Amino acid sequence: MARNLQDSGQFSRLSVWNRSASKCDELAKGGAVVAASPAEVVRQSDITFGMLADPQAASDVVFREGGVLDGLSGKKGYIDMSTVDEATSKKISEAVVSRGGRFLEAPVAGSKKPAIDGTLVILAAGDKSLYEEALPAFEIMGKKSFLLGDVGTGANMKLVINMIMGSMLGALCEGCALAEAGGLSQEDLLEILNISAMASPLVKVAGASILAREYPPAFPLKHAQKDMRLAIATGDRLNQPLPIAAAANEKFKEAKAMNHADDNFTAIYEATTVNHRNK
Amino acid sequence: MARNLQDSGQFSRLSVWNRSASKCDELAKGGAVVAASPAEVVRQSDITFGMLADPQAASDVVFREGGVLDGLSGKKGYIDMSTVDEATSKKISEAVVSRGGRFLEAPVAGSKKPAIDGTLVILAAGDKSLYEEALPAFEIMGKKSFLLGDVGTGANMKLVINMIMGSMLGALCEGCALAEAGGLSQEDLLEILNISAMASPLVKVAGASILAREYPPAFPLKHAQKDMRLAIATGDRLNQPLPIAAAANEKFKEAKAMNHADDNFTAIYEATTVNHRNK
Amino acid sequence: MARNLQDSGQFSRLSVWNRSASKCDELAKGGAVVAASPAEVVRQSDITFGMLADPQAASDVVFREGGVLDGLSGKKGYIDMSTVDEATSKKISEAVVSRGGRFLEAPVAGSKKPAIDGTLVILAAGDKSLYEEALPAFEIMGKKSFLLGDVGTGANMKLVINMIMGSMLGALCEGCALAEAGGLSQEDLLEILNISAMASPLVKVAGASILAREYPPAFPLKHAQKDMRLAIATGDRLNQPLPIAAAANEKFKEAKAMNHADDNFTAIYEATTVNHRNK
Amino acid sequence: MARNLQDSGQFSRLSVWNRSASKCDELAKGGAVVAASPAEVVRQSDITFGMLADPQAASDVVFREGGVLDGLSGKKGYIDMSTVDEATSKKISEAVVSRGGRFLEAPVAGSKKPAIDGTLVILAAGDKSLYEEALPAFEIMGKKSFLLGDVGTGANMKLVINMIMGSMLGALCEGCALAEAGGLSQEDLLEILNISAMASPLVKVAGASILAREYPPAFPLKHAQKDMRLAIATGDRLNQPLPIAAAANEKFKEAKAMNHADDNFTAIYEATTVNHRNK
Repeated sequence: MARNLQDSGQFSRLSVWNRSASKCDELAKGGAVVAASPAEVVRQSDITFGMLADPQAASDVVFREGGVLDGLSGKKGYIDMSTVDEATSKKISEAVVSRGGRFLEAPVAGSKKPAIDGTLVILAAGDKSLYEEALPAFEIMGKKSFLLGDVGTGANMKLVINMIMGSMLGALCEGCALAEAGGLSQEDLLEILNISAMASPLVKVAGASILAREYPPAFPLKHAQKDMRLAIATGDRLNQPLPIAAAANEKFKEAKAMNHADDNFTAIYEATTVNHRNK
Repeated sequence: MARNLQDSGQFSRLSVWNRSASKCDELAKGGAVVAASPAEVVRQSDITFGMLADPQAASDVVFREGGVLDGLSGKKGYIDMSTVDEATSKKISEAVVSRGGRFLEAPVAGSKKPAIDGTLVILAAGDKSLYEEALPAFEIMGKKSFLLGDVGTGANMKLVINMIMGSMLGALCEGCALAEAGGLSQEDLLEILNISAMASPLVKVAGASILAREYPPAFPLKHAQKDMRLAIATGDRLNQPLPIAAAANEKFKEAKAMNHADDNFTAIYEATTVNHRNK
Repeated sequence: MARNLQDSGQFSRLSVWNRSASKCDELAKGGAVVAASPAEVVRQSDITFGMLADPQAASDVVFREGGVLDGLSGKKGYIDMSTVDEATSKKISEAVVSRGGRFLEAPVAGSKKPAIDGTLVILAAGDKSLYEEALPAFEIMGKKSFLLGDVGTGANMKLVINMIMGSMLGALCEGCALAEAGGLSQEDLLEILNISAMASPLVKVAGASILAREYPPAFPLKHAQKDMRLAIATGDRLNQPLPIAAAANEKFKEAKAMNHADDNFTAIYEATTVNHRNK
Repeated sequence: MARNLQDSGQFSRLSVWNRSASKCDELAKGGAVVAASPAEVVRQSDITFGMLADPQAASDVVFREGGVLDGLSGKKGYIDMSTVDEATSKKISEAVVSRGGRFLEAPVAGSKKPAIDGTLVILAAGDKSLYEEALPAFEIMGKKSFLLGDVGTGANMKLVINMIMGSMLGALCEGCALAEAGGLSQEDLLEILNISAMASPLVKVAGASILAREYPPAFPLKHAQKDMRLAIATGDRLNQPLPIAAAANEKFKEAKAMNHADDNFTAIYEATTVNHRNK
């Protein structure tokens, strides 16, 4: 994402920081300034983008000594593109705003390849003026960006999308398992699906994974299951029954119990078909 | 489908028959011969295509007085493109073959619009030589055809595909309902989905139907539920658990109980979100 | 059941018949007349009780040459205590009634031990006068009998009861599996349950089976799964969603796939806990 | 519970405290000393029993100024009989033990009536010597007590039991709904169940509630749903799939959405049958 910003030539000079300093080497060769701390990045920039591994890391980079908060002044903007829960996002937002800064959460749909290709979908929520100022950068990192509402809306939207994805994958796996059990060709099934009303990038990629029964992690199953769980918990809070997602979630748990937690989330197929192999 | 064959100009003369004679008028204007019975169509043709409403009608057109069987001679081919169950298909196949004829089941994926546009997907199974002879006709009626295996394979493949479709639709509906319950914009959700890994014709069309909460029947919900039921029954016979499809099926039943049996199958959304409205 | 009638001394003389003649030996020693055919039993009796293995056998004993119908005259009564589906029961009823006879379906709740002990629960439906005449016999064979309504009501009531039983067993198994996974003592759990609001003969007997992980067949799992399937199909016909029973049914199917079809129905525990063992 | 201890005459003098002082009036008339604070109760007693509404209140009574901790000295025992989560229980345990005291969690199975009747089931876990000293008191308050293991085991055991209860209730409701949909008598069904293998206090009491469609709260539905949710979350942590409980939980959520949160948990029946009434 940073390289795409750099390569665009639209930004005078990038200031970058990473917990593992070596990860900045390539950007430094391209002319980026490697800052000594998150605070220093913020001091040198009008807008700072954060992309951290999880809620804990996303909080830490803001609240630590030498963190984002320490660098804030005036109406500088901080944009957190990490995938975090609504509560974490709101906590960061309040801290930034109480220092006079502006905040945007901006989780993305898409994983490694869309990040490299600059084809992410950006689910922003929060400060509107900051969104508008950041739009030229979003347009380089993603193919489409949305300003969805108040802080928290982006986090929740991402949960809804991942819940739909997890259930749809489960549905695909059941179809593949039924085909296998009934002696139908899975190759034929997937070829038909890929030209049917259900044709989608998910069906194409997951179908190939199921066919090969190979699950190199692009989106680890344990993360997919965690998102299912959080989405169902949201339904719980809102009294919205989600029986299909709940059934899919139980299958993801079964796949975790079968040691597929670190495999790609398509390994839910092993839990769908597993008992059949015992015959 | 018949009109597309006629319009192609590739076939010397079509012979047609319909239970409601007036449905042949337009084809007659285009030069088709209107036969007095199914048997007469078969006598005048090397290959006869049947497309009937349900298993009962598909059987009747074959076994009735003046039906398909009465017209068979030599190695004529009969191709049933109706959606029927495996048992009905096998019964027709045996009767045709025992008279010396050749048989192909060829249910299609796609409803009214793909039929008009000649973009159906044809799931053929049965006699290979007949399949090859019929290929020029399949290429006009559909965008792609498959020879899947023995008679019954086409019927079962269609069930698997419709089961996946029903479950995926249910997954989409739960996502839309959760968005609604949580105050997220369904418009935004669907716009994001339509450029995501889950983007598919199904998501696009069903999403629009859910957003408008309008369900003009293209694929009636009661038929979708029947296919779910039959697919799950197949899983039952094969000892293949299908918990996600089973959960979706219960929602389709709930939608039927809410008087949506004759609406489009996207009306399952009403059963997904219904209780939320009671708050 | 016949021996209990005989031992009661209330009935002048029993006339008996069985497909395997030797099964009548003991009753013959006690004074019963062994008839040459079902028809002969009917000719010698005011009321005839049938108890057959399945719908096919229950039909056969009525419609065969020398079957129940052949012996009917006047207003004789025929009571079928087999577990059959509504359609079979109605077909037998119509045949008996059209010959001038009276019919009662009377499936029982309870298996081998209650039959021996005379503690069955009798779910009768059909001819009221016949029910009243048969009551003294029912009171010997069972601890309680019901006249539930028209023919078919008894068959359906039994399905509802077995569906509840299957789902409750599934619920118990999930609790036992969660205890096991969490390092709680299953012995303690079952001891607590047996003095709780959930204390029941089912919990007691199934709990002991789960604890020992031994499943000698009293009620074979494949029969329990068949009853789940038929009950869910009834819900399908009536548009009554049954998501809990559907989830339990999928587990029964999984247990069948794991080769437990002929074990006791409590072997559903193996499908509930199986994946956990893979850790 | 306190009154039963008092009435037993086995304990020299009770010292009592309640957040609402008036609730101690009756015990005071019977000779109990009304203390000014939890700490004072602890100072005056060898063993102190706490019974609070929820985890927050259970923590507060221990950690507040003048709370349990402030009164501890020597090897005094504190027994928390509230229903709290494992984490809260462990936090209290650590605090008590670090002051030199002894701790026991002892949640109970049973609600108001068993408390009055002294027929609770006590699920204790923690300090064994304290358990043995408290046994005479447990024997007065309950009909049976268990020492289950380390602190946390009691909390988890109670979740497992309530999960089984919630699923079994859901199973009963589906049976009652199917009977209703199919025109069977629910009275007959419940009468049969009450003499069947599934006969239990739960079936008896819940059945009567369903039949009357009256749900005066003994165990509020929102609490039952919360326990389902926590049990499923435990399964999540342990990778133990619980599809039946998950399906039941979605029904409890539906019932909450239908405004039954404060009704008795048997009101899940309204969510089970609700759509059927729309026919």
